This record gives sequence, C-alpha cells and structure tokens, in this order.
Amino acid sequence: MKVSMYALSAQVFVNTLGNLCWVLEKGGNNAAQRKIDPSVLLGARLAPDMLPLTRQVQIACDIAKNSVARLAALEPPRFEDNETSIEQLRTRIARTIDFLEGVPVSALDGAETRDIKVPAGERTLEFKGLDFLQRWAIPNVFFHVTTAYNILRHNGVDLGKRDFIAGGRDA
Amino acid sequence: MKVSMYALSAQVFVNTLGNLCWVLEKGGNNAAQRKIDPSVLLGARLAPDMLPLTRQVQIACDIAKNSVARLAALEPPRFEDNETSIEQLRTRIARTIDFLEGVPVSALDGAETRDIKVPAGERTLEFKGLDFLQRWAIPNVFFHVTTAYNILRHNGVDLGKRDFIAGGRDA
Repeated sequence: MKVSMYALSAQVFVNTLGNLCWVLEKGGNNAAQRKIDPSVLLGARLAPDMLPLTRQVQIACDIAKNSVARLAALEPPRFEDNETSIEQLRTRIARTIDFLEGVPVSALDGAETRDIKVPAGERTLEFKGLDFLQRWAIPNVFFHVTTAYNILRHNGVDLGKRDFIAGGRDA
Repeated sequence: MKVSMYALSAQVFVNTLGNLCWVLEKGGNNAAQRKIDPSVLLGARLAPDMLPLTRQVQIACDIAKNSVARLAALEPPRFEDNETSIEQLRTRIARTIDFLEGVPVSALDGAETRDIKVPAGERTLEFKGLDFLQRWAIPNVFFHVTTAYNILRHNGVDLGKRDFIAGGRDA
C-alpha cells in the first residue's frame, strides 16, 4: 500500500494552515494584552528586505491553494490581497482550507506524474507532480508559515513549537 | 498509482537538508566577508527564549533521521551535539543525508499504518505512520530548517528564497 498525493498535499496544508490560524489568534490576543496596535505586528519583518507578516500569510495561502489546484488540474479561487486585520487574514486561511477540503481526493489520482508549470518571474519552472510537491510546494508553504510564526515570536508573542505543530493541542 | 512513504519523507528531507547545507555555506562566506566571528551567527537567536542557530540545525537533522528511522523501524545514528563551527554542522547534515539515502525504500513499505511513539518531555505522543509524517515529522523538520534560514537572514546574510528552495539553483 502507498499513500495518496492528496494526503501529502491538501491534508498537510490544511493542518499547518489551521495551526497558523491559531498562531495568528494568539498574536492578536497578545497585541490586545500589551496594548499594541495589531497593524504593527502585521507590518513586522525579520529583515528590512523580507516581506511582512501580512504577506507571509497571504503567500502561504496562495501557494497551498495554487499548488493543490495545479496538481488537481483545477482552477483555484483568487483572493484580493486586501486584508488589513488579523481577523481578515484568518478568514483568508479559512477560505483556503475550505477550497483544499473541497478538492476531491480522486482529482489528484495520477498527479505524481502530471506536468506542472510554475511561473517564477521571467522564468517558468517545470516539474513532474511528485517532484513539484517534494521540492517546491511543501517547502514553500512551510517556509511562509514558519516565517509568520517567527515574526510573531521575534516580536514577543508568547508562542511555542506546540502552537506551530498542533495549534496548542497536545499533538 | 500512489506514492511511497519514502518519497514523502526521506527524499523530502534530503532535499531540504541539502539546501540548508548551502544556506550555511553562504552564512559562513558572508561572515568571512564582513569579518564577523562565525560563532556569533551560530549563537544567534530570533528571540531570547528561542534556540540559537547551532541547535536549530542539530534538531533539524535529528528530527529528519529519527522520524525516518521510526517509520522504517530502524535504529538511527546518534550524534554528539558537539559542533562548534559551520563546517562541523555541514558535516552533521551530510551524515544525516547519508543515513537517509541509505534507508531502503522497501523499509518504509506499509509505514503509513505503523504505530509510532514519540517521547515528548513527560508525555509520549502516539500516531499512525501517515499521521506522524503529515502532522509531526514534515512540519517539524521545516520549522527548524526555516528558522535556521531566518536567523541568518535576520543577521544580514544575503539569502533569498531560492537558496532555501533550491540551494541557489534554478529550482
């Protein structure tokens, strides 16, 4: 027996995005306690030439939905990139999870050998589906989810790895 | 057709650890150019109560090798946690990759339903193999690899996402 492409793409992304939603909620609560304007956290960066928290969350959602859509040969929903609050970012995550959960498992049957093209600036990256998932989609989603966590952590929000791994549950 | 547990565990970890090796090399070169003692970078943290770069790299290696070993019901190699230089950390990564590449693909046949126990402080977490890979092993490895990258990035090393995703290659 082997495992489905759905299990290692959509299900993995639903799990980590759900935890990101929890991490953002803790960030919002912490800002309220410390009387910090949440927009300060949303605009925070780990380096002047890195993207701020809002963009990290938006991109995590986009790569998750667009990657699964590519693997399933479906059209992903488009979001406006107009979120200005933690609550709106959490709604974007919820909409992304809704899309991922609505993709039929069967739509990813055979996706491991599908030809995938990803626009990247002036280049177009080409992969087979499994390679795309291993080397591009999974690392990319976790890059942005972890960086979002690290931005909040760096700004003093009381988070621990359990929040990242299990949304504060026991795992 | 479906995909093997090996492809979504060992191969994914070999890829991201190889990129981490490249990221560390760039960190070392950057420290030399800026005349920064590399131990400053190795001890750098994103928050006072987060682990420094050295520990992030050690733990990324440990979770990768221990997770695949658990899935394969093999004994993983033990490392001493005594690295004091970037070169030594890169050697640890290389030894981890050697182990992962040496695990027979067939050792993970059926690993998706294997019972996995993970000691976590005073608790023991229990998973089925697929759930362990989706919710624990993959997120955990990427958490530490991304945090290592973010520590260097936060300290002014000239890294971009292409370094993280593809070790500076075109992807």
